[in-house]
Amino acid sequence: MPAYSTNMRLQFPILALTLEIITIILFAVFVDYDDGKHGGHGAHNTTHHEEKTEQDPLTLYPMFQDVHVMIFIGFGFLMTFLKRYGFSSVGLNLLLASFALQWGLIMQGLWHLDDGKIKVSVFKMINADFSTATVLISFGAVLGKTSPVQLLIMTILEITIFGINEHLVAEILEANDVGASMIIHAFGAYFGLAVARMLYRPALRNDHENDGSVYHSDLFAMIGTVFLWMFWPSFNSAIAAPGTDQLMAVTNTYFSLAACVLSAYAVSSLVEHKGKLDMVHIQNATLAGGVAVGTCADMNIGPFGAMIIGFVAGIVSTLGFKFLTPILASNLGIQDTCGVHNLHGMPGILGGIAGIVAVALGKKNGSAAMQGAALASSLGFALVGGTITGLIMKLPFWGQPPDQNCFDDSIYWEVII
Amino acid sequence: MPAYSTNMRLQFPILALTLEIITIILFAVFVDYDDGKHGGHGAHNTTHHEEKTEQDPLTLYPMFQDVHVMIFIGFGFLMTFLKRYGFSSVGLNLLLASFALQWGLIMQGLWHLDDGKIKVSVFKMINADFSTATVLISFGAVLGKTSPVQLLIMTILEITIFGINEHLVAEILEANDVGASMIIHAFGAYFGLAVARMLYRPALRNDHENDGSVYHSDLFAMIGTVFLWMFWPSFNSAIAAPGTDQLMAVTNTYFSLAACVLSAYAVSSLVEHKGKLDMVHIQNATLAGGVAVGTCADMNIGPFGAMIIGFVAGIVSTLGFKFLTPILASNLGIQDTCGVHNLHGMPGILGGIAGIVAVALGKKNGSAAMQGAALASSLGFALVGGTITGLIMKLPFWGQPPDQNCFDDSIYWEVII
Amino acid sequence: MPAYSTNMRLQFPILALTLEIITIILFAVFVDYDDGKHGGHGAHNTTHHEEKTEQDPLTLYPMFQDVHVMIFIGFGFLMTFLKRYGFSSVGLNLLLASFALQWGLIMQGLWHLDDGKIKVSVFKMINADFSTATVLISFGAVLGKTSPVQLLIMTILEITIFGINEHLVAEILEANDVGASMIIHAFGAYFGLAVARMLYRPALRNDHENDGSVYHSDLFAMIGTVFLWMFWPSFNSAIAAPGTDQLMAVTNTYFSLAACVLSAYAVSSLVEHKGKLDMVHIQNATLAGGVAVGTCADMNIGPFGAMIIGFVAGIVSTLGFKFLTPILASNLGIQDTCGVHNLHGMPGILGGIAGIVAVALGKKNGSAAMQGAALASSLGFALVGGTITGLIMKLPFWGQPPDQNCFDDSIYWEVII
Repeated sequence: MPAYSTNMRLQFPILALTLEIITIILFAVFVDYDDGKHGGHGAHNTTHHEEKTEQDPLTLYPMFQDVHVMIFIGFGFLMTFLKRYGFSSVGLNLLLASFALQWGLIMQGLWHLDDGKIKVSVFKMINADFSTATVLISFGAVLGKTSPVQLLIMTILEITIFGINEHLVAEILEANDVGASMIIHAFGAYFGLAVARMLYRPALRNDHENDGSVYHSDLFAMIGTVFLWMFWPSFNSAIAAPGTDQLMAVTNTYFSLAACVLSAYAVSSLVEHKGKLDMVHIQNATLAGGVAVGTCADMNIGPFGAMIIGFVAGIVSTLGFKFLTPILASNLGIQDTCGVHNLHGMPGILGGIAGIVAVALGKKNGSAAMQGAALASSLGFALVGGTITGLIMKLPFWGQPPDQNCFDDSIYWEVII
Repeated sequence: MPAYSTNMRLQFPILALTLEIITIILFAVFVDYDDGKHGGHGAHNTTHHEEKTEQDPLTLYPMFQDVHVMIFIGFGFLMTFLKRYGFSSVGLNLLLASFALQWGLIMQGLWHLDDGKIKVSVFKMINADFSTATVLISFGAVLGKTSPVQLLIMTILEITIFGINEHLVAEILEANDVGASMIIHAFGAYFGLAVARMLYRPALRNDHENDGSVYHSDLFAMIGTVFLWMFWPSFNSAIAAPGTDQLMAVTNTYFSLAACVLSAYAVSSLVEHKGKLDMVHIQNATLAGGVAVGTCADMNIGPFGAMIIGFVAGIVSTLGFKFLTPILASNLGIQDTCGVHNLHGMPGILGGIAGIVAVALGKKNGSAAMQGAALASSLGFALVGGTITGLIMKLPFWGQPPDQNCFDDSIYWEVII
Repeated sequence: MPAYSTNMRLQFPILALTLEIITIILFAVFVDYDDGKHGGHGAHNTTHHEEKTEQDPLTLYPMFQDVHVMIFIGFGFLMTFLKRYGFSSVGLNLLLASFALQWGLIMQGLWHLDDGKIKVSVFKMINADFSTATVLISFGAVLGKTSPVQLLIMTILEITIFGINEHLVAEILEANDVGASMIIHAFGAYFGLAVARMLYRPALRNDHENDGSVYHSDLFAMIGTVFLWMFWPSFNSAIAAPGTDQLMAVTNTYFSLAACVLSAYAVSSLVEHKGKLDMVHIQNATLAGGVAVGTCADMNIGPFGAMIIGFVAGIVSTLGFKFLTPILASNLGIQDTCGVHNLHGMPGILGGIAGIVAVALGKKNGSAAMQGAALASSLGFALVGGTITGLIMKLPFWGQPPDQNCFDDSIYWEVII
């Protein structure tokens, strides 16, 4: 790679300030407080049950805060496993998510204007946080190999494309995806993998000195894992219909995750040297049950059905880390730093397929064909959008790190050694 | 100790997968969603006020999540104080709790079938999380000296025995124990101490190199301490009667814990070299107020009464760490790694006694004799159950670590040095 | 500094135990449970809308727990950035806050007795937690240079003075300050800075070996930062009027903080060497938006208005860290360890001024003059109170650390190296 400057001075501050000023202007024009009076959705019933906020505008607030913790602590610390990239992991996570939630509110809200305004409710804040999740998943795929400027560009484009696909899936196809296995997890993962493919660095084929963990960095990562694991029932149920549907989404996710832990630990021990457990698997594959049960979370699949989904997801995810990730890197040129393919990609597809089957079996009103179309749409937008985004990010003047400085905070942060 | 194999390959995966598959089958037969219609408890009023869930099935959900954080972050990180055992502490905590909550749901639910089914409500999830606490307390007593296989065996047996004692205390004796000083804390502690006695290792009488903390491991442990401390009011009030009783349980626990911090710090400084504070005391004894006020939490003892209980608990617990733990280890052969006797054992008994006194003084409806019987029952089941469980765990083919590899992650985990 | 003893034995335990015993006696006399029946506020409507607790005493409980996490995890871990002062940061934070919440409940409650009693509701617990925040902010200014005994003395005095100023601002001036930009943030900061001025140590003018971070201590600090950042909407809305006002406070804070992150990152990169980001800025200045929007949080300033406040706060705060803190230390003798002037001081004043402007523009009922008087009162009480408190803390027998042992846990804690 040629020696382009990684000095962010001017380029990064100007981009960040400009984006924020544009966003504030857009907010001044389009965004207002929710006044509790919803009108205008008209012909079709709102599928997201937004009207519940009419009664008490803060009913969903505790679930919002759980999702908030997943986004900022969960994703942020999960990525601190790298020995010299903790500042970037938790710090750039904060930066990207802060911008993404503002941008996401607009990109999602423009499809649902109410008297020409996006009226901010807790429900809309949850959706804004959700939209950031796609970016943070993709961030995991390119972690350590991208500059803050590149990542801000990815954020703008990915959120915009996410908004289009989400509108298509929820409003046009009217598909079920309450926990967003398809529109967030599979979308975010394959978008990120497409970007990673475009940014392929042959020099990183051999192990990079900093592309690994140390003892304490793995413990920091477990903070992220456990908060994600605990609050996932809120993620999958936050926008479910109030009452028994929402309780069902909580219950299914709770048990899917519990079953997933057992299978992830078992398979980790089974495939590793001397039956030992591998922190990479434990940090990630234990969460696959939350991803995979997402689409079906509010469907009447039975607690045991949710557990089967989680059980399978834990196996698939762990095997993916062990066998598939090295193949993707060496044969397909997809260097997936955090293994998002195993945590979000395959379990997301598994969730989409489970949703098709469950709808076909009548566990929820809907059309199996539309569920399938939703999955295909999410994958299609992700792969095409990610490829185009990756090509833009590849342009050589975004301050990307040289190969030898990948996975190293000190290139973008003041670090005292 | 003879050189049995610690290689977990096959034994651990087979056990974990088998347990999970059996559990899924049991769930398929016995477990269903809560439909909001409760019937069948019949003659006696439900003492746990489960009927509140009829109005809004997610009323208790924020408290459930607080308890969830205590179980997975609180207990998990509290045990990361050991310098080389952090992966096991937070990782095996996740494994055991994930299995325990599934097993606990069944072991508790079988006593209360509704049309032949266990109907999962948030209330039942809280109780499932509660049942895991007993195992995690016992885990603290044997931390560093047991294999994952041994710990899974302990989980199965302890939860089963807990379910019997809990049914006896709550339904037959009709004793008060809203914050579970007796049925969780005292039970879990003495069960674990009985197991530890059975697994006594003479070679560990002299200090083991890894049986201690380093600077950063003590900070990780404080994450656990502080989350336990903050959310303890939720633990003690989650299953209280809605309304003023529940508020009383929150209030009493809040002030008991605050008073406990002052006395724990004071006594720590008083008994240590040059008046310095000891992290072991701060990490643990500051929580004793939450344990000790548990039984009385929803009783009209006055905020100052709760503070007296917390104040005494902080003193007793700190003195226990300083003076009693070494005696238990050297004279009775009870090697209590985390000092659960000081955090859960003695404060649990203190809580049980406070409950007897409070009921005798008319602070709550009930029988002081039944309160006493509940304490005795909890201790009895714990000591007998723990002894039998310890004997089974002592069988020499469960992959237990040799003495020199105790308190060391690298025997069961891939660790990069 | 003369070689006074830093041995805390006797002095610290006696003080802590005495304070707790006195507090328990005061609780026995003055404090009772909330019974849901509020009377006696009489002529003027309660501005804090306490009556909402009449319906369900635990409605505010999830927000209380968010605030609780900010106090104990947020403030505690934010200060762990120092390489050798983590035990004191999180440990003394727990000690001081535990005492402060008890003392604060009395100092605030005595102004509002109900039948001669302070009746504890969740609302009052939130206010008790709030009062601790002032002490923890001031603690940040003197971090590393004070003994536990000095800090307990500061706690008693600061909370007492806070209670007077809070009563004056809320009840006499009837000023708006829902998120407490003035009465907590500006007050706590300038109180702490006045104390720091009194405790000026010339020998610390040159860099102290321990007055800095290491890689992992900066990551621990980010735990504090992110929890503060996430839950700040709860802090600013917890005591707002239920319904749309409370939602507005959540919304404004959410977007103010998001905008603040972008400007803080941009300016950090702009002013640092080679455009790199500085962890000190990221840990602190990203939170200034929460402080600055506090007074206006429940005012109809529009989401974009909140974002402008946050955007400006992020810039001011970052520039303060870079340029003002060194000047305060070298020219004014104010050694502000955590830079509370930049995080709480200036943004607090900014919030107070924004409140004056917003009230003048009719965004909320009130008097711009009274808003101005509230800001002046808060600064006046802080500076005078802090100066007097600092003089008392300067007395040479409170076990303060010698210059060479500042910023070092091992003087008050058992530390294994």
